[in-house]
Amino acid sequence: MNLILLFPSDFKSNLSVVRLSGRRHSHIVNILKTQLNESLTVGLINDQIGTGTVTKITPDFCELKVSLSQAPPRPSKITLILALPRPLVLNRILSSITTLGVKDIFLIQSERVEKSYWKSPVLDENNIQQQLHLGLEQCVDTILPTVTVFKNFKHFLQNNIKDISNNKTKLIAHPSGKDIHKNPVKPVVLIIGPEGGFIPAEIDKFLEYGFKPIKFGNRILRVETAIPYIISNLEF
Amino acid sequence: MNLILLFPSDFKSNLSVVRLSGRRHSHIVNILKTQLNESLTVGLINDQIGTGTVTKITPDFCELKVSLSQAPPRPSKITLILALPRPLVLNRILSSITTLGVKDIFLIQSERVEKSYWKSPVLDENNIQQQLHLGLEQCVDTILPTVTVFKNFKHFLQNNIKDISNNKTKLIAHPSGKDIHKNPVKPVVLIIGPEGGFIPAEIDKFLEYGFKPIKFGNRILRVETAIPYIISNLEF
Repeated sequence: MNLILLFPSDFKSNLSVVRLSGRRHSHIVNILKTQLNESLTVGLINDQIGTGTVTKITPDFCELKVSLSQAPPRPSKITLILALPRPLVLNRILSSITTLGVKDIFLIQSERVEKSYWKSPVLDENNIQQQLHLGLEQCVDTILPTVTVFKNFKHFLQNNIKDISNNKTKLIAHPSGKDIHKNPVKPVVLIIGPEGGFIPAEIDKFLEYGFKPIKFGNRILRVETAIPYIISNLEF
Repeated sequence: MNLILLFPSDFKSNLSVVRLSGRRHSHIVNILKTQLNESLTVGLINDQIGTGTVTKITPDFCELKVSLSQAPPRPSKITLILALPRPLVLNRILSSITTLGVKDIFLIQSERVEKSYWKSPVLDENNIQQQLHLGLEQCVDTILPTVTVFKNFKHFLQNNIKDISNNKTKLIAHPSGKDIHKNPVKPVVLIIGPEGGFIPAEIDKFLEYGFKPIKFGNRILRVETAIPYIISNLEF
């Protein structure tokens, strides 16, 4: 936790003081071992970053006097469309993607996504939000990504992909692709497939919608490795 | 498992036939559901890649007729020196680094590496080898990386870092660094620190040995995200 993420509901009637309990309180007291009058990096969700000075510590909560002055880091201009990964992997990936500054994440169905994955509690809204918060706390950011879920591949194509990819460089990671030149024109919308890849009919559909296949090297990476590996190359 | 990794001991007296039991047998029968006379991608450890045609399936083992003809993919020219991560993370990272084609991995002590990490069974030679094998099977490679462990930071500096970094571009990931230009001269040796970073005295030492601090963007990434993110940028 490199930043303590604050929410409007944390603020007491005094507008510059927050009271934190639970996970954040425990982290400040037990992990960071912050003492009275010491300061921490804090950030208000979807707002500025600044410092919080500890003004009170009790066994159940702590209070911080908050001063916000700094803009959050520039968001990535990459939109990610991802075939739903295995639940355990998804959990790690959501926070990892968040640390990369990606703000628009779409999870889609694909032939090679097991139907059972869609029933996983990992997809519960509360859990998704928690993973995004963990990511923001890690990378010192406050701008919450949005995660949108499309359980029907056809509907996604018919109703959504055009709007999502409009006026963006459209790329799909695929072994048939060419090694891409660096730093494509932003914004970019990037599609990453499931374990085992999209089936040919799915790839054809994406090509129809103007997506270009790209790859980096000849190795087959796990999705959790592929995402930072590819995004890094598109980012700079 | 995009490649079935073979070892010299798998070969029967007939030099082109392997007998597989245990994890690989179970994967071929239960996951890939390969049938008699069907072929799989196989590779002999530290040797060529080719195909294995299933000639026998029993409940306990299967046999493949093997034909090797193809060179493994070009290895990365990046050497990685990594402050020992938390055991759970290390396990995932070893296979992830392997999928990136990195062949020389050094795990080192640092002030902010908890001493208890060094006692984890994750560091057992058998487990390390298993993670490397999983990585090779994922990325369709056969060249086994070497993992070398240095539990003493001072000894590592005094006795090893010069040899490891000799005639290589020397880089250390650090927030004080400059955003690096793409595609530095290879080979590269890259140092990545622990959670919380190296302490200033450690950084100073690396600078003395000629390492240049680099960064990509302003976000603090978890090590499992940072490794593919940075390596991708240095690779291409």
